[in-house]
Amino acid sequence: MTMTIAQLGRPDAVAEVAVRIDEFFARMESMALPHGRRYAELWSAARLSSEGGKRFRPALVISAHQALGGDHHDDVVAVATAFELLHTAFLLHDDVIDGDTMRRGRPNLVGAFAAQASAGGASPASASSWGTASAILAGDLLIHAAQAQIARLSIANDRRSALLDLLEETMFVTAAGELADVAFGTGVEVPALDETLSMTQWKTAHYSFQAPLLAGAILAGAPSETLQALGEFGHRIGVAFQLRDDVLGVFGSERVTGKSASSDLRSGKVTPMMCYALQHDDDRELRNALALGVVTEQDECRVRELLERSGAREFAETMIADCTRTASMALDSPAVPVSLREQLERVAHEARERVS
Amino acid sequence: MTMTIAQLGRPDAVAEVAVRIDEFFARMESMALPHGRRYAELWSAARLSSEGGKRFRPALVISAHQALGGDHHDDVVAVATAFELLHTAFLLHDDVIDGDTMRRGRPNLVGAFAAQASAGGASPASASSWGTASAILAGDLLIHAAQAQIARLSIANDRRSALLDLLEETMFVTAAGELADVAFGTGVEVPALDETLSMTQWKTAHYSFQAPLLAGAILAGAPSETLQALGEFGHRIGVAFQLRDDVLGVFGSERVTGKSASSDLRSGKVTPMMCYALQHDDDRELRNALALGVVTEQDECRVRELLERSGAREFAETMIADCTRTASMALDSPAVPVSLREQLERVAHEARERVS
Repeated sequence: MTMTIAQLGRPDAVAEVAVRIDEFFARMESMALPHGRRYAELWSAARLSSEGGKRFRPALVISAHQALGGDHHDDVVAVATAFELLHTAFLLHDDVIDGDTMRRGRPNLVGAFAAQASAGGASPASASSWGTASAILAGDLLIHAAQAQIARLSIANDRRSALLDLLEETMFVTAAGELADVAFGTGVEVPALDETLSMTQWKTAHYSFQAPLLAGAILAGAPSETLQALGEFGHRIGVAFQLRDDVLGVFGSERVTGKSASSDLRSGKVTPMMCYALQHDDDRELRNALALGVVTEQDECRVRELLERSGAREFAETMIADCTRTASMALDSPAVPVSLREQLERVAHEARERVS
Repeated sequence: MTMTIAQLGRPDAVAEVAVRIDEFFARMESMALPHGRRYAELWSAARLSSEGGKRFRPALVISAHQALGGDHHDDVVAVATAFELLHTAFLLHDDVIDGDTMRRGRPNLVGAFAAQASAGGASPASASSWGTASAILAGDLLIHAAQAQIARLSIANDRRSALLDLLEETMFVTAAGELADVAFGTGVEVPALDETLSMTQWKTAHYSFQAPLLAGAILAGAPSETLQALGEFGHRIGVAFQLRDDVLGVFGSERVTGKSASSDLRSGKVTPMMCYALQHDDDRELRNALALGVVTEQDECRVRELLERSGAREFAETMIADCTRTASMALDSPAVPVSLREQLERVAHEARERVS
């Protein structure tokens, strides 16, 4: 999402999040040095893992807080930082779980550490263990650090407690989504279509949209009707966002998205779109193609064709349109200030129409 | 350590920790069900992972708190629970990092989930991915849950803040120790002897002894001299405890310890004892034996012999004696009440003399 920082909230507050994150990592790196050069390198690599994203989760926290009349300036920066650190932790562990060694076009922490160990003479198995262990530990540290941002807020007990509840729910729901994603991808479980949609909501929508908006609103002291509306909006728009990601992951232009249009196909992820196609695969052509493995460009073209022909791409587009529509409807409430509604309508539009 | 629950603190408070942990997992399992049967099974397996240990970390928290006149009964149970959940999280991730599928004589979470997936027809690679992913997620959830226990304490801000600082340091130091352990074990780094001793302190002593004692003392509002003495004691006795573990791991009776006396040798861990032996391995006999891999019983006997002959076992015993002696000296302070000193002397004795 290329728009969010410019179109959402106050760019200066988002810039403060960047500063806060930088300060956090700088402090950790310098504290790590007495525990060995490798540990300082781990923190430095963790910092790198947190860079290069659009940081739209912090922007959502700050926008909601500001538009709802919140005046906890320092605190909202801390809460926004928490969501960005949590996001980085999830990316780190997601890559370990998926066995990926690249992200955003460069080696991720696993890949970089493994490569460094190999260059130092480690065996392939040792290098890989080293990369994996490092990424697990980096993610662990950031899960803790995210929660610390919220646990340390000097605000009224009931608000801090509500934010801790929200973060707990976020961990709980996101882990459920990740587990379902792995179960479907490894074939441990064959999902129904609605289960892939639930997985999408749990794994992505909750922590990327729903929770950041709710966190900003809770900090601002918003009433329950507002929380209700923002939660519903975040749920719907988060699903639309991920479905668009799924479509772009298969049909997008690699030049524009910056990510491979084949990795999704090759990884065997069962997105809602793929699940739909499999359910309309009466002659088992798709199933057979996937079973053989999507290896060559020709294989990919064939699978894309089958996704089109089965109506799966159309299904995904229909769901995206439906989710953005119901997301907008959720905002149509007197509990949502007009200025916030306008900002979130732009988010909804972008989630639906984006090409990268 | 078989003694601690009986000899330390109030058994009833430790029993309350067990109840609190049970309630926590029961609540999580029932909340997980709407997110799929697999997720409920993950929580059930996480509960199982938390069972079977001696729970001496909670006992240390409670003993310190009580002996120092603390009267935060409910809160100390929460803090003790935090350390037990954190310990379980570390075990889960440690097993993933080490590639272990067994613990305490039965399949661990990785092993159990992989076996279940295999039985359901998953390929070996898929089953292994499923087991690993599940254990990573379970650990993540427990890292968060441990911190939540402390973040939610309704106590004076300065004490909660000091406990949050302690937990942050605990995460930070333990991860440093784990990283060093992996660096040494994979050969990414060749350690000096003092580095293996630091690793032992960071990875085990801090979270198992130092931090639980300090947590109990902080909650009781103990003065800084007491914290200083307990920190020093925990550091020393924690190292002695782990060195004893290393010796038992190689020379112990499998029948008594309940753990394989060969897994340590086969895993390639560079304990301080092993490091000492390698530094006195002038004819490279040990190095050559390890390079060939410790596979047969004969290999093991040979390595044990070399550890004896190099003086490495003797070195470990000397270090254990020295650490327990300096640990006791740290307690010799008017800032440590006699009743606590007596309890901790028993811990020191046990750490030194235990055979399992």
